[in-house]
Amino acid sequence: MNKPKAVVLLSGGLDSTTVLAIARDQGFEPCALSFRYGQRHAIELDYARRVARAMGVENHVVAEIDLRVFGGSALTSDIAVPKDRPATEISHGVPVTYVPARNTIFLSFALAYAEVLGAADIFIGVNALDYSGYPDCRPEYIDAYERMANLATKAGVEGRTRLTIHAPLGSMTKADIIRAGTALGVDYGETTSCYDPGEDGRPCGGCDACVLRAKGFAEAGLADPLVARYR
Amino acid sequence: MNKPKAVVLLSGGLDSTTVLAIARDQGFEPCALSFRYGQRHAIELDYARRVARAMGVENHVVAEIDLRVFGGSALTSDIAVPKDRPATEISHGVPVTYVPARNTIFLSFALAYAEVLGAADIFIGVNALDYSGYPDCRPEYIDAYERMANLATKAGVEGRTRLTIHAPLGSMTKADIIRAGTALGVDYGETTSCYDPGEDGRPCGGCDACVLRAKGFAEAGLADPLVARYR
Repeated sequence: MNKPKAVVLLSGGLDSTTVLAIARDQGFEPCALSFRYGQRHAIELDYARRVARAMGVENHVVAEIDLRVFGGSALTSDIAVPKDRPATEISHGVPVTYVPARNTIFLSFALAYAEVLGAADIFIGVNALDYSGYPDCRPEYIDAYERMANLATKAGVEGRTRLTIHAPLGSMTKADIIRAGTALGVDYGETTSCYDPGEDGRPCGGCDACVLRAKGFAEAGLADPLVARYR
Repeated sequence: MNKPKAVVLLSGGLDSTTVLAIARDQGFEPCALSFRYGQRHAIELDYARRVARAMGVENHVVAEIDLRVFGGSALTSDIAVPKDRPATEISHGVPVTYVPARNTIFLSFALAYAEVLGAADIFIGVNALDYSGYPDCRPEYIDAYERMANLATKAGVEGRTRLTIHAPLGSMTKADIIRAGTALGVDYGETTSCYDPGEDGRPCGGCDACVLRAKGFAEAGLADPLVARYR
């Protein structure tokens, strides 16, 4: 029997790669969706492609959307990425790395892709615990998005399918995520997290994403294979 | 005193141009947002630029997003645009010109633009009466979108602004829309509606959008200046 297709938003980072493994483990055929959106860390798309290949994903679409047209974020403009903030400070307030409405835009493309594929399931790696304080990572946001999405599409209106937005990392700590992915065979050496990597992909070690990642591996009692790779 | 900014989704068509005039009449400074999304009728962007200029819009962003990457619609692929359907049949069922999740994607970009501008108002020309049966034109969809949007953004989370999605054409007939726009000084000769225009912009006269437009002008007892232009 064919597995049901699910759209998985895949950045090539630690969280979305774990989500891809979870979707596959739950019996879905993951169809990956990545974005070239003008991010300064576009190298993550190389990781996304590698991850998708390593995990046997057959459908992987990279959509081109230029979010630089609006500006307003350190990830898509010349605003400096903050460095060396302690993990305890990262989850307070919305930082300059927040890209306006980014998850809303990403989920909207996922909705279009799902509708064309005939898929009723979308997976997103948002996490509201060890996170950067972004509004569009919270469970109440995801619930409201799902409700809207079920009114937005042909399948929803015709009552054929009920669309589900899966956010399986919901309230997991970074350490929980790393343990779960490791149990599912994820090779985290193939993932990237850094907001401000070197040209060769070397993580800066100081941005919020690097700090949260290091803390997660430390708490999980595991070594980060990405660190070994750039040693 | 500065007028509050509002993002207006502007296709260059009859409905969105009327909405632009309504937003201006309500005391907003309209900031227009259009999309090059791989539509076969990309000539509408020339109309959008002309309309924006004619109406004194200072900020007009054209975002590049390639929706052809997913396929699935007559407006972005080689699927034939249906012709010569009577107006009474057009609003039943979802036709092949439906672009999966298009309004959800457009509103998501409007949300990003509004957040960067510091605007709390978004205008969209959806209409659920003389329309093509698209799920993402219905009032319950717009309400659910607004609710989600207020959980999605930095401004929403920080409680600074409550975002409103205005759909002023809601339940107006096409004739009502044309009368309202005419009263506000809209020159409909500068707008386009056709899904399948000739290279010079000449409307086909047979697609759903042309049929609904002709019916609207007839019911309003007005001549369509666009018809005169191509005579």
